[in-house]
Amino acid sequence: MSRLSEKSRKDRLLVIGGNAAGMSAASKAKRLRPDLDVIALEKSPHVSYSACGIPYFVSDLVRDPGQLVALTPQEFQTKRGIQVCTLHDVVDISPVKRRVTAVDLATGREVGFDYDRLMIAVGGRPHLPAPFNPEAANVFSIQTLQDGIRIKQYIDTHRPRSIVLIGGGYIAMEMAEACRLRGRDVTILEKAPRILPGFDDVIAGHVAAELSANSVRVVTDVQALDTNGDGAVTSISAGAGSFDADLVLVCAGMRPNTDLAKIAGARLGKTGAIKTDWKMQTSAPNIYAGGDCVEVRNLVSGGSDYIPLGTTANKHGRVAGENIGGGTATFKGVVGTSVFKVFGLEVARTGLALAQARESGFDADAVTISENSRAAYYPNAQKVVCRIIFDKRTGLLLGGQMLGREGVSKRIDILAVALANKMTLEETANMDLSYAPPFAPVWDPVLVAVNVARGKMQR
Amino acid sequence: MSRLSEKSRKDRLLVIGGNAAGMSAASKAKRLRPDLDVIALEKSPHVSYSACGIPYFVSDLVRDPGQLVALTPQEFQTKRGIQVCTLHDVVDISPVKRRVTAVDLATGREVGFDYDRLMIAVGGRPHLPAPFNPEAANVFSIQTLQDGIRIKQYIDTHRPRSIVLIGGGYIAMEMAEACRLRGRDVTILEKAPRILPGFDDVIAGHVAAELSANSVRVVTDVQALDTNGDGAVTSISAGAGSFDADLVLVCAGMRPNTDLAKIAGARLGKTGAIKTDWKMQTSAPNIYAGGDCVEVRNLVSGGSDYIPLGTTANKHGRVAGENIGGGTATFKGVVGTSVFKVFGLEVARTGLALAQARESGFDADAVTISENSRAAYYPNAQKVVCRIIFDKRTGLLLGGQMLGREGVSKRIDILAVALANKMTLEETANMDLSYAPPFAPVWDPVLVAVNVARGKMQR
Repeated sequence: MSRLSEKSRKDRLLVIGGNAAGMSAASKAKRLRPDLDVIALEKSPHVSYSACGIPYFVSDLVRDPGQLVALTPQEFQTKRGIQVCTLHDVVDISPVKRRVTAVDLATGREVGFDYDRLMIAVGGRPHLPAPFNPEAANVFSIQTLQDGIRIKQYIDTHRPRSIVLIGGGYIAMEMAEACRLRGRDVTILEKAPRILPGFDDVIAGHVAAELSANSVRVVTDVQALDTNGDGAVTSISAGAGSFDADLVLVCAGMRPNTDLAKIAGARLGKTGAIKTDWKMQTSAPNIYAGGDCVEVRNLVSGGSDYIPLGTTANKHGRVAGENIGGGTATFKGVVGTSVFKVFGLEVARTGLALAQARESGFDADAVTISENSRAAYYPNAQKVVCRIIFDKRTGLLLGGQMLGREGVSKRIDILAVALANKMTLEETANMDLSYAPPFAPVWDPVLVAVNVARGKMQR
Repeated sequence: MSRLSEKSRKDRLLVIGGNAAGMSAASKAKRLRPDLDVIALEKSPHVSYSACGIPYFVSDLVRDPGQLVALTPQEFQTKRGIQVCTLHDVVDISPVKRRVTAVDLATGREVGFDYDRLMIAVGGRPHLPAPFNPEAANVFSIQTLQDGIRIKQYIDTHRPRSIVLIGGGYIAMEMAEACRLRGRDVTILEKAPRILPGFDDVIAGHVAAELSANSVRVVTDVQALDTNGDGAVTSISAGAGSFDADLVLVCAGMRPNTDLAKIAGARLGKTGAIKTDWKMQTSAPNIYAGGDCVEVRNLVSGGSDYIPLGTTANKHGRVAGENIGGGTATFKGVVGTSVFKVFGLEVARTGLALAQARESGFDADAVTISENSRAAYYPNAQKVVCRIIFDKRTGLLLGGQMLGREGVSKRIDILAVALANKMTLEETANMDLSYAPPFAPVWDPVLVAVNVARGKMQR
């Protein structure tokens, strides 16, 4: 076992995982403390890429996978003074010795790295439901840039007629659009009674209609899945039905990677992901964590949630990096905001869905309105469906969901900021929102919805 | 003097002014208390129209002035049970007798109206700088729907070659675009050293470039204005220069209409506009007020401001109407949000501009960044210029300004809600904003700007 470092070395930040949380932490710490020795270890050949861009790479809207990469390992070295070791798979952490052991996948040899501070940013891994074999030639998860490259290559070379997506969350929506844009038949198999578990029925219904209008087949209540075919899947049996599958894309959720945290003795939370404090420190000394391997506080419910998202990962990295670099920063939690595009629709959510709000102990109710995206007389106004979830006793805003052909993405952020500040409906109704006829009606859809919700409150 | 009402009548809400604040108050109060007798008096022939739509009517994007009208007087009667008397010019209020005297402009006769609650929503009037004669055949202000109709008629019939706009605020920007779309030569004359007084230099500079790119001539530092021509203006002298003017549009700001409030003994505020409490009550008994005739609290500076805007007027009306209708609602103030479109640009602001922040006693500084509206790899990403004004000692967010070819209008609202909640830069940096490649980069321009601002704080 070789040693890259010696006792007389500079203070070192070692980062495990070269993506959003890891490279943000590395960059921020190095900027604040240029004297710091910063090394990042990454298992895959790529660092610092946009996993969220994979559907647009598969659809061919983005031609070159390099476009999804923010900085290459070489650029991290030359522009930021950060050493990146790709193809290094970390297999052990000793918090006592402050030492990490990695396998250099190019040589198969173990390499040791000492550290003063360690950042665990190893992300999550896609959940692969029971019948699917990751070795099958035409079954892919959608997580890493390598996954994206392989899927696109498979489509380019094998020209699959029918693509089956396992799971009906937002990544399935984006991939369904991508595969239709490539001219393939697309079927979504979802085990729940409907798609989009994070959204309420009315919003999921609109999305189902958009999928149908774009010839995507959606099958729900799919229980007993089975694969047919040898080596490569040829079809999928699901209860009574059978579906041709020249290519299977599994988007059935993520699980946090916690093996290394366990080895290091860092505490996990109720969700099974790593628990950190507001400074992104784990319970293990000198070890920080962030990104898809940690759980977050849901600022609306007050509970812990596992919501793996690139935006959160980047913020985790910034906060960890600032604290490691000698500054003071905190990350208190999320409100659960997300948005996706599926064909012509923008679909967004923040806060709690209705069922989730009731499970969290709120006396929750919801209203849904439809209002113009622009002044009604301004050309090309579109309908924005806006749903507000609220506590009908206290008037506390609890969540929002929105959908339309324009004006949804940043409009949801109005509610996201309101939720983070625990605003009531009455306070939200008075928000001084921007208005001009090309961009909104004089009563913004958000304000209309909030006012309708106020009318449903208990007196 | 005839009397429309008698002692035995139902409780009555009398509204003076049939636009945003007035008709919102009338509608809300009537909905909450269907037994209430609600009468609205309006001087002009139109009620409940979108004054903000006038530029789009003049440009011919909106063909029929009726499209700008939300409800006609007849519809208020039949759909909402509200009696609207147009062409009624109120000339006196007796708070002791609870009686209003109006002149019926159709007959020239005085009519008396008793009330139990009175809502003053008489709006503002355009400021007409010294040399301009409102009687001149080709000089128009831009306020009422009648103004819009007359301007469009003038352009249609006289086909003016050169149009001069007096004033360089956001209405001038919208009208400049409208007049260029009609194929006219357009000159903006602004007395200040630059256009857009509510914005900081860097943003105003980008707008000036957009005007120039669209062949709008902008002349600043225009002092000694004089008009030439007999009956109709033919040219305008401004210091050394002289400008052909086949049509003059005056957009030099608004003044609150306070004559009736003074007659009623309602107190005015420091700004010269009517002062109300949080329930929109004036100091005169049983008299409420709202809209462009009242001043508002600026929630960021803590002072009083005169910011006439349709959105605020509507909220004033809602709150006054709820309180009149037996409910409880409050309106605590604004943060000063506005947005406009000028040719291909969306331009928005909220909170305090830098100079304004310093005048308000803050230790203010500002940063300006430029970031993509979408993920850099997603097609058609545009640059969003985002400026953040902040207190460099406390880290308090004080204002924001934004500009770009997409993604500005609702993005400014993120900062508007943050300002209303007195958030710090650190808190704002952690906002859980929506992200997907078609709609934002993983670090939203707002978050990038806020993080850069944090770096400029005093340690």
